[in-house]
This record gives sequence, structure tokens and C-alpha cells, in this order.
Amino acid sequence: MSLACYYFDWAATALPDTAFGNAQDGADMTVFGNPSSLHREGRKAREALEEARERCAGVLGAPSETIFFTSGGTESNAIVIHAQLLRQYPISILSSTTEHPSVRENCLCVEGMGKQIGFIGVEKDGRVSARTLEKALSKYPNAGFAAIMAVNNETGAVNDIKALSAVLRSQAARPVHLHCDLVQAVGKIPVDIRAWDMDSASISAHKLGGPRGIGLLYLRKHLQTLYRGGGQEGGIRPGTENVRGALALADCLEKRASPAAVQREASEARLRWKRLIESLRAHDRCTLIPSDRTDDDERFSPWILQAGFKDIPGEVMVRALDEAGFAVSTGSACSSASRERPVLAAMGLNPELSLNGIRISQGWSTDRGSIEKLIEAVTKILRRY
Amino acid sequence: MSLACYYFDWAATALPDTAFGNAQDGADMTVFGNPSSLHREGRKAREALEEARERCAGVLGAPSETIFFTSGGTESNAIVIHAQLLRQYPISILSSTTEHPSVRENCLCVEGMGKQIGFIGVEKDGRVSARTLEKALSKYPNAGFAAIMAVNNETGAVNDIKALSAVLRSQAARPVHLHCDLVQAVGKIPVDIRAWDMDSASISAHKLGGPRGIGLLYLRKHLQTLYRGGGQEGGIRPGTENVRGALALADCLEKRASPAAVQREASEARLRWKRLIESLRAHDRCTLIPSDRTDDDERFSPWILQAGFKDIPGEVMVRALDEAGFAVSTGSACSSASRERPVLAAMGLNPELSLNGIRISQGWSTDRGSIEKLIEAVTKILRRY
Repeated sequence: MSLACYYFDWAATALPDTAFGNAQDGADMTVFGNPSSLHREGRKAREALEEARERCAGVLGAPSETIFFTSGGTESNAIVIHAQLLRQYPISILSSTTEHPSVRENCLCVEGMGKQIGFIGVEKDGRVSARTLEKALSKYPNAGFAAIMAVNNETGAVNDIKALSAVLRSQAARPVHLHCDLVQAVGKIPVDIRAWDMDSASISAHKLGGPRGIGLLYLRKHLQTLYRGGGQEGGIRPGTENVRGALALADCLEKRASPAAVQREASEARLRWKRLIESLRAHDRCTLIPSDRTDDDERFSPWILQAGFKDIPGEVMVRALDEAGFAVSTGSACSSASRERPVLAAMGLNPELSLNGIRISQGWSTDRGSIEKLIEAVTKILRRY
Repeated sequence: MSLACYYFDWAATALPDTAFGNAQDGADMTVFGNPSSLHREGRKAREALEEARERCAGVLGAPSETIFFTSGGTESNAIVIHAQLLRQYPISILSSTTEHPSVRENCLCVEGMGKQIGFIGVEKDGRVSARTLEKALSKYPNAGFAAIMAVNNETGAVNDIKALSAVLRSQAARPVHLHCDLVQAVGKIPVDIRAWDMDSASISAHKLGGPRGIGLLYLRKHLQTLYRGGGQEGGIRPGTENVRGALALADCLEKRASPAAVQREASEARLRWKRLIESLRAHDRCTLIPSDRTDDDERFSPWILQAGFKDIPGEVMVRALDEAGFAVSTGSACSSASRERPVLAAMGLNPELSLNGIRISQGWSTDRGSIEKLIEAVTKILRRY
């Protein structure tokens, strides 16, 4: 791939992996049928779809009947949150204060429709702790749902889902559905859906080098959901099944999310990040976000870094780097039009530093040379401004 | 493409058009960025997305700001119906009795959530008439929404949307949002979104030879919708935009849905259908559905045919044809698992004939030779059973 820039915005979307694309093209000609059709073309498509489901389930260590293909992470999150509208008894819906807009905004939507919403605060490092979770549970004793992401998309903060689910199971007054946005976690850090004891989880293919428009929802137990249609995907996600997409997602997960692949890639990513973080810390105008993030910090994903530069608004830095041939972002691409930084505000960051924050994110094909180039470019820009 | 069967199930999904696939692959490498990102890769992707939107709008004769990319027809229908939950004043939601499950089931869902639902009946030919619409409007004077599909997916019945919207505009006590499922209409019969005076419409790419997981929603005026996220697609359809899919949909519409292409292809389809219908009528065990459908009937789409064979359940006929190498279906693929035939019941068909009904649907590459083969195969099967 000839790319016109050094790409450091993998958290927005990964460089596409041509291998996954090719697998799709093959599927296009061989399994084009509608999997709900009874004839041979339908059955071939159904077999391919179920094979894709089993392959995804295999990588995730989950039963295949818990895997539902969706159009992506946003939809997976929305399906589960909107399903809460159909629960008969009154519950509070909890969400951490640093969730992706597709969780946060859908929680606010169901709040507008009459559900009680509560927030789970984060510590200064942007992570939900046992303390903040317990506080939320005691404030909302009728909590019946909690959304806690595994890896924050702006800071890379890693929540210890296993420990937090244990708190939920022991401290909550009633069973709480734990939903976990895994979009920035799968393929990036070790994930164990079953050991982490979650009830549902969201995964997106395009963050793994796969195509747009395909993702999955892990759902431990069947749920009555809001959107209806022809009953596809067990009624969880209607619409003619995207067989090509499902096969491509299976390719992504097998290549990127096996425990061995994650361990290998994450440790290489951590070495590259160590170098970047050391260099940035050497600039006295640079503040890592949070400021105590170290160059090899287990609390954070080694794929995402948030940092602010004194007297340079994030948007200006993004544009300066873009002119120099580097793609980075401010916050989430999903809120790049907004000047608000709710994730950073939730961490108690002062507003000025928040507005100076940029996100640098790397991927599997990021090499050390491009990190050196990025360090040089930042240094030059800091001299200029 | 080497296909293992004669394919007569285009209404479930079209044979993929390799040209659209290739356009996608090109786009994959050149515009992979997240259109919400501010850097050059993001801007390139944004430009491609907006180009795709303008191309779709151009074919449909609608302003580009009324086109919102979705994951397909089911989602487009669901977005508009669920948005009715957010309307403040009490309205009734009307739906014709022959709508696709993605309309019917979502109407039933919002009914379960407290909205009043009413049905617009159809005549024996399966079409909504001024009479049935007026009847529904007088029964539900607070109607604020009406879903009427353009072409029925099981029978091919064509509703005269232009005439029906005129009835709605003149007879309804208040403004009614007219939603039109165009999934089986666009590229198949002449469609004029503006002249037909609809408020919203659904279109799916895979029915046009494009990929799965992409469709569009035409929305004349902005609507507050239920599913939220990063605000993409004007807040109508959140989630990272499927740029490749949008470009492929634009390819589909330009190739298949221009007035000239539709006129040419529909008249050829009508000639092929004339031959099929004449042959089927010659079998005394065959009843067309509805029985007065003629061999060149303007009330029906020339791409879809429903017919029943005396003493042969539809499922048996589908399997017998499948064994003989022909792909047809019973009803909608989206309800092939169900033994109910609500569309045929709505037409007042007797239950036995309903259960004998099969759907035969053709596409652009269907040739006369394969129709002759199908006629032979049906004749042989009728001799056997």
C-alpha cells in the first residue's frame, strides 16, 4: 500500500489488511446467496455464515450461539443499551464516564425515554476502580445494567474488567448486566470474555484491518431487543446477513486476536511506545495524559497515547502534523467535530490541557522508523509555535 | 460466474455484479480513512463519501442532504419507525398489511412500547387502494405516519404511491409522514421520489447486485432518531461510515436505477415474464397469486411472480425445484422459517393456496433460455406429484 502519510490514527480506523479483502472477494462469488433461503445457494451461504460464527467464537473462547453479527461496534453497543427499554422492572442503567459516544449517547437517549441513568466515575488515570464502581452501586441500588469499556479509545486506559465484574457480582443488590465495549481491546490486549464474566461485548472489524459495516455482539444470554425484521441472527440483528463481512471478521480475529498474536504484537507495540513516550516526556511543553503515565505502563494500552502540548490547541497540532505528513487526531473520530472532551473532563483534567490533547495511535504495521519521524516532526512543530 | 443452479430468487438477493465489487476494492486502498478524521486520509474518505452521496442523490433526483447511508433496507425501515417513539404528541402509526417484516415487526414493536398502530388493508390484488387508505384514515384520524411499500416482495404488487400520497395529503386530518420501502422498486420499476411526494424511503444495495451491509435512507426533512453515537450521517445513522459500501451503492444506482436503465430492463423483464406466466397459466394445477394476474399486468412488477400449485405445498415445490437445480423461494427469505404467509392472508387468499405459494423472481442477467428450463422443470415436477 502506498500511503501518502505516516499513519498514527489506527484507533479511528486501521489500515485495511488486503488479505481480509481477498478472502471477501472469493466469498462474493462462491457464497452470494441469502442465508435465509432454503435452496442450495441459500444453504451454502448459511454454512459459510455459521462457519464464520464458529471461527469468531473459537478465537474469543465463547460458544458460537453467543455470537451475533452486526454492522459494527456502534450498533452492537446500541442494541444492548436500547434493549434495556424493554425490561419490565425499573432499573438504573450505569455507564462509566469515559465511554465511547455510541455508549454515552445511547444511554442519554434511553434516559430521555424514561430510564434512570447513573454514571460510574473514573480515577485520575481514567480507569474505573473498585472504589468508583462501589460508589455508583451504592448511589444506584437498583442498577440492572452497567457499561464499562475495556480500553478507552482516547487515552488507552485499560479497565480491569475481571476485577470490576467481581465487584459487580459481589456488591450489587441484584443481577447486573455487564456490557463491555471491546472495540479497542480485541487484538490489542489480552481479552478473556468468559473469565472476565461479562454479559455482552462489542467488536468491530474495521479496527482490526477488516472492512466497514461488520462487527459482532457477544451476548451470553438471549435478550429481547428493539429492532425487528426477518428474525435473522436469532432476532438480535435483523437484515440479510453480511456473509462476506462475517468471513472477513473471522479472518481478522484469527489473524489479530488469538492469544499468541496479541501477546507478540502487544509486546512489540509496547517497545515502540516506550520510545515515543520517553521522547515526548523529554519535551518540557509536553504533558502525557494522564501526566503520570510512564513509558511502560500496564494501566494503558500500548496502542493509544494521549498527550497535550502547552499553548498548542490539539486541533492546531493535528493540522500541523497533517501538513508535515502525519495522521493523528484529537479525541475520538466520532466526536472530532466537537470541541468538548468529555473523556478528559471525566478524568478531572483542566480544560486548557484537555483542549491541547491529541491522540496518537499505532497499529501492527507501524515501524520504529516512522516513530522516529513522528518525534522529529513534533520537535520541529514545537520549535515553530 | 459459474453458478451451480438456475437462479430465480433475485428478490431475496441479487447475483453480485463484479463491477461493483471491483470499484470497492479500488476504494479500499485509496480511501480507507475515517471520514470523521481531520487529517488528509480522513478528508479523502470524506470526499469519497460525499461524492457517493451526490451520485446516489443524482440518480434518485433528490438533494444530496436527504440521503443517509445505512447498513441496508431493514435498518432504514427501522430507523424511521422507531423515530416515531420520540414524537411528543400522540399519533397513530399506519402500515399496509403487506409490508416486509422489517416494517411490520418494527411497527408491532413500537406498538408494544405504547404507540397506537393501525393497518391499511389491501385489495384482493394485494395493492393498497384509495378506498382502503381512506378507510384507514377515517378509522385512525390521528394518523401521523404511514408505511406503504412501492413493490411487494412476495407478489410483486405495485402500489401507486403517487396517487396514494395525494389521498394522504388531501384526506388526512393532519400531516402524515409517508414512508416508502423502495427495496424491490428501485432499479426495477420507474421510481420518482419527489413526484411521489414521500417523506422517507429505504433502498438496499444487495438487491441491486451490490454488497451486503449498505443501503440508504432518503429523508426529506431531518428527524430525531433513536440510535445515537458519534453523530455520523447527520445523527441519523451513527457508526464509522462505510465508504467502500457507499461507493458501491452509487455504482449500483447509476448502473441499475437510472430512468433509461429501468425502462430498458423492465421492458425486457416484462417480455420474459409474459412467457413464464403464459406457460404457468396453461397448467390447470397452477394458480397465479392473485388469480387474475395477467401475462402483462401493469399492476405487478415484472421481476416477481407468486404462484401456487394444487396439492403441492410451497416448501415441497421449492425443494423439488432445488433438486432440479433451480433456486426459488416461498415467501420472503426474511420469513422463510415461518409457515405463516401474512402477505397472502392480507389479500384474502384461502389458507391452502397460501401454503402452496412460491415466489419466482428474476434479475438483469436472467435469460429466456433459463425461463424455458424452469417451465420444463415445473412441468416435470407436476407430473411426478
